[in-house]
Amino acid sequence: MSKQEKSQLKNNFMGASTKQGHEIAVESRKIVKSLIDHKISNLRPEERSIVERIVHSTADPEYAELIKMSSDFVFKSLESIKNNEDILTDINMVKTGINNYSGEIKCYINHYETKELARKEEITRAAAAIQIAASEGFEGVVVIGNSPTALFEVIKLKKNNQLRAKSVIGVPVGFVAASEAKEALEKTDIPYLITKGPKGGTPVAVAAINSLINKGK
Amino acid sequence: MSKQEKSQLKNNFMGASTKQGHEIAVESRKIVKSLIDHKISNLRPEERSIVERIVHSTADPEYAELIKMSSDFVFKSLESIKNNEDILTDINMVKTGINNYSGEIKCYINHYETKELARKEEITRAAAAIQIAASEGFEGVVVIGNSPTALFEVIKLKKNNQLRAKSVIGVPVGFVAASEAKEALEKTDIPYLITKGPKGGTPVAVAAINSLINKGK
Repeated sequence: MSKQEKSQLKNNFMGASTKQGHEIAVESRKIVKSLIDHKISNLRPEERSIVERIVHSTADPEYAELIKMSSDFVFKSLESIKNNEDILTDINMVKTGINNYSGEIKCYINHYETKELARKEEITRAAAAIQIAASEGFEGVVVIGNSPTALFEVIKLKKNNQLRAKSVIGVPVGFVAASEAKEALEKTDIPYLITKGPKGGTPVAVAAINSLINKGK
Repeated sequence: MSKQEKSQLKNNFMGASTKQGHEIAVESRKIVKSLIDHKISNLRPEERSIVERIVHSTADPEYAELIKMSSDFVFKSLESIKNNEDILTDINMVKTGINNYSGEIKCYINHYETKELARKEEITRAAAAIQIAASEGFEGVVVIGNSPTALFEVIKLKKNNQLRAKSVIGVPVGFVAASEAKEALEKTDIPYLITKGPKGGTPVAVAAINSLINKGK
């Protein structure tokens, strides 16, 4: 193994922690680069790295055309991550996929208070979970990998200065409301990463935040 | 709410547990049907239901053309699920996404013995985790949403009568080894669900197993 490979392995390059996992990750990254790098040459290195990791994780090169980041997204996200501020996720699948973060990762979807609030207010549990996080004083990067209603809630609370979201990875998935929620995020002044259209989801969200965490080390 | 809606809500239709979540799920399912049902009219109702849930979860209609199931897949999977046999997943993200199962869901990827075995044998942790499951006498449905090396291990152990896999959801994702692992599964006599080509991943795996669990109730 070369010195570079040893160092990459130590840092869990692309999530791999064994020599074999690492070889697969390196070979995959080469293929990803050959497929999409000509399409993302206008992006800065950290931004390219995020898009490459998303395409690696989904094996779907279309994401090179669907991902859009605000110009302050990487800077604001890294600032929060380097300070080990909390990360808030909409669902536990996203939380479970986040690796090697020194700060806390929070998700309130299955909390008792969330279920009660959802029932009382007649909103989704995912939206109620964001309200609970805000009321507990959350501050940091928000990662929405599944629920459009959670993303709408983030936008509303941030606008009312009730949620200290430093940046938002907003990639909810689905044919109903997901595109609209992402378009709404794009129109705010919140530093954002979105996917255009209905596609997105947990692997996209997880790849984006793990790429940033790795960069923040 | 109609009687049918109330009953669907009670059963967490498509994972929704609130009225608003349920409305989104129903509307989404209608759109999914309009997009893909003409492409999957040759499938049996339970099989169609699985494909629809995968397209709902990924917002990617291409899966209607990529998913392939062996003719005994649904029957053998439901048999195991109705008996509350264990479910084995390759990574914790898949485990986290599985809802409302009365049996146990196992994942050994982060176990100490798995890491030791991977190091000693120079294999991936995902492959070592399958070996550990086999040695503990696992019996039930196997769900591989991420790792091609885990799927190759399942095929090898099952062939040697060392793993009692009743069926395999084999949808690892990636440009390296994933297609090959799925083609290898297709050539066995194990009841299988695969995605053709590099695409797949945790949302596909989770949608497939949750659809079966729901049907098994």
